Amino acid sequence: MQLTDLETPALLLDRTRLDRNLARMHEHLTQLGVTLRPHVKTAKSMDVVRRALAGQPGGITVSTLKEAEHFFSNRVTDILYAVAIAPNKLDHVADLRARGADITVILDSVAGADALAAKGESLATEFPALIEIDCDGHRSGVKPGDSALVDIGARLHDRRGARLKGVMTHAGDSYNCRSVDAIRAMAERERTAVVRCAGDLARAGLPCEVVSVGSTPTATYAECMDGVTEVRAGVYMFFDLVMAGIGVCTLDDIALSVLTSVIGHQPDRNWVLTDSGWMALSRDRGTAKQPVDQGYGVVCDLGGRPIEDLIVVDTSQEHGIIAKRNGGSVDCSRFPIGTLLRILPNHACATAAQHMQYHVIAGESHVEAVWPRFSGW
Amino acid sequence: MQLTDLETPALLLDRTRLDRNLARMHEHLTQLGVTLRPHVKTAKSMDVVRRALAGQPGGITVSTLKEAEHFFSNRVTDILYAVAIAPNKLDHVADLRARGADITVILDSVAGADALAAKGESLATEFPALIEIDCDGHRSGVKPGDSALVDIGARLHDRRGARLKGVMTHAGDSYNCRSVDAIRAMAERERTAVVRCAGDLARAGLPCEVVSVGSTPTATYAECMDGVTEVRAGVYMFFDLVMAGIGVCTLDDIALSVLTSVIGHQPDRNWVLTDSGWMALSRDRGTAKQPVDQGYGVVCDLGGRPIEDLIVVDTSQEHGIIAKRNGGSVDCSRFPIGTLLRILPNHACATAAQHMQYHVIAGESHVEAVWPRFSGW
Repeated sequence: MQLTDLETPALLLDRTRLDRNLARMHEHLTQLGVTLRPHVKTAKSMDVVRRALAGQPGGITVSTLKEAEHFFSNRVTDILYAVAIAPNKLDHVADLRARGADITVILDSVAGADALAAKGESLATEFPALIEIDCDGHRSGVKPGDSALVDIGARLHDRRGARLKGVMTHAGDSYNCRSVDAIRAMAERERTAVVRCAGDLARAGLPCEVVSVGSTPTATYAECMDGVTEVRAGVYMFFDLVMAGIGVCTLDDIALSVLTSVIGHQPDRNWVLTDSGWMALSRDRGTAKQPVDQGYGVVCDLGGRPIEDLIVVDTSQEHGIIAKRNGGSVDCSRFPIGTLLRILPNHACATAAQHMQYHVIAGESHVEAVWPRFSGW
Repeated sequence: MQLTDLETPALLLDRTRLDRNLARMHEHLTQLGVTLRPHVKTAKSMDVVRRALAGQPGGITVSTLKEAEHFFSNRVTDILYAVAIAPNKLDHVADLRARGADITVILDSVAGADALAAKGESLATEFPALIEIDCDGHRSGVKPGDSALVDIGARLHDRRGARLKGVMTHAGDSYNCRSVDAIRAMAERERTAVVRCAGDLARAGLPCEVVSVGSTPTATYAECMDGVTEVRAGVYMFFDLVMAGIGVCTLDDIALSVLTSVIGHQPDRNWVLTDSGWMALSRDRGTAKQPVDQGYGVVCDLGGRPIEDLIVVDTSQEHGIIAKRNGGSVDCSRFPIGTLLRILPNHACATAAQHMQYHVIAGESHVEAVWPRFSGW
């Protein structure tokens, strides 16, 4: 099958770039002496994750129990569910555990620990848990130095329904860094936050077998992983314009794109209309706050080469409007109706989520496979 | 099943509100003497669309050929595919037509008309088509008064591979109106644009059986449909915060919400953390440019009543951050871990698209049905 045989919009995955991105991350983390627990929330595809797990211990990170179910059905058993556990999900977690999935949950409060332990006791099971640490004020977690850490740890350790496995953090604020130096500093802040907390637990006589960090920017540029037992990352597999905008990759590393057809023109406005709107590209505008705003995505030719200054400036549900980044004239006759273009996404997780499969390409035009992916909860 | 039995996040559809919204639109259009061709791009569910078709002629509007396939498999045959047709979709359209689906396509250029007719001739079939009219400079279409209209019409009429059925327009810019008067004026502009173009075709001796308009704001407030044969609208079934923000509905009309669990707190920041991030709510920030910015959605209690000034101020993939609209203190103890909340969406089309089913509620807590929906192309 060729790209020209596909109905548009269609999600393309460049396997050559994927493999290169995976190899680069593996090599970097191997040099730092730490293993990778890939976050599957970006790919949601066993075909992709199987490649990401090559040479790694085999554990994954998930953001939904549907991901846990899917990858467990594909014989992945070591699963970290990295969103603070809601009580209404515990029966499901217990059921997965009873079927053989070794799922660990996370939480960041005494109340959460009590609820977990109580549920474990009522089900006569034991939920392994990590304590989430807030390394950067970005979202959730216990702040390093907060006495709640040991309170939570003691509850998880002491009660029969739970088991304290360790600590984890996510430097989500690394997405707002503007230089490699800033990302390096964030990586060190991420590491020291969990290593300090692991020490606090140890000093309190509590176990801390797992010390887990992760974000694609910090994993890419970290220079030291002393005291860390594993790294979580997901978007590094595909990369995207947000990552390119903070210097974590180049446009040539972005493995994901949306194949798009030209369906019309408004020459007086220098607009080229396409059939890829926000449903195909996602509503993500993650580059809006970056120095270079990429609109809803960078426009490339069929071979994946960016076309000078053309971006998707606006979208509706199934329409995209392509124009020059800073206005300026577009020769619409270069893009006759039916022209195929490829759009690089702002945010790989969001764009991939809009599609049901990857059309896998290796060269410029041949589709060598179709890999299913899934969505929902 | 009760709401408290669901795993979160889960998409809820209030059937009472849905039925009221459907009845109101039907009544209004009946008074104006025009029929409704519901746009199924919002609901993507036969269970919803069956209700929307009650008392109407039975035709639908689609935004993807997957919608066409799905509803045709549910015995809907009169289908308008309302995105300018891309050449790579014509084999699929021809195949649907050969199987009995009466699909009409749209286009807005001479080149598009030529491509359509040539393909029809090569397949020994005839593609019915409407000419898209640009009534508001919002996106695509031929401007009223542009001589291209008759050129396109003549090609569709004269060539064997195509058939000219009429004209259509979409007042997309009505989403940017800020008053009911402005919407009424936009509705009249939408109507006069297509009626004028229908007249131009007739004066050129060309047929124009269909004169189609549509957007939820203009359909809601239009006062005259003279010369119009049908109205298209979709979001009126569910409504959303964008529609409420321009005065097309109230918060009490919004039939869609996302059931959400509290998973943590950051009391020093007055944040309540939930398990509904942009994956569950969508990345749509359609209220950002409105007088009242609703963040990623308005927070309601389990009964669907908005909680004073609480909105989702930020999201990551599977996390939402609830806070006061204008900062200010939140008593986190009111929302213990496990508390169930409901989030009203900015944009029903975008939020529904993130989910695989509707959990249908009629009262405050009972789930009376699960209606499947679909995504993709």
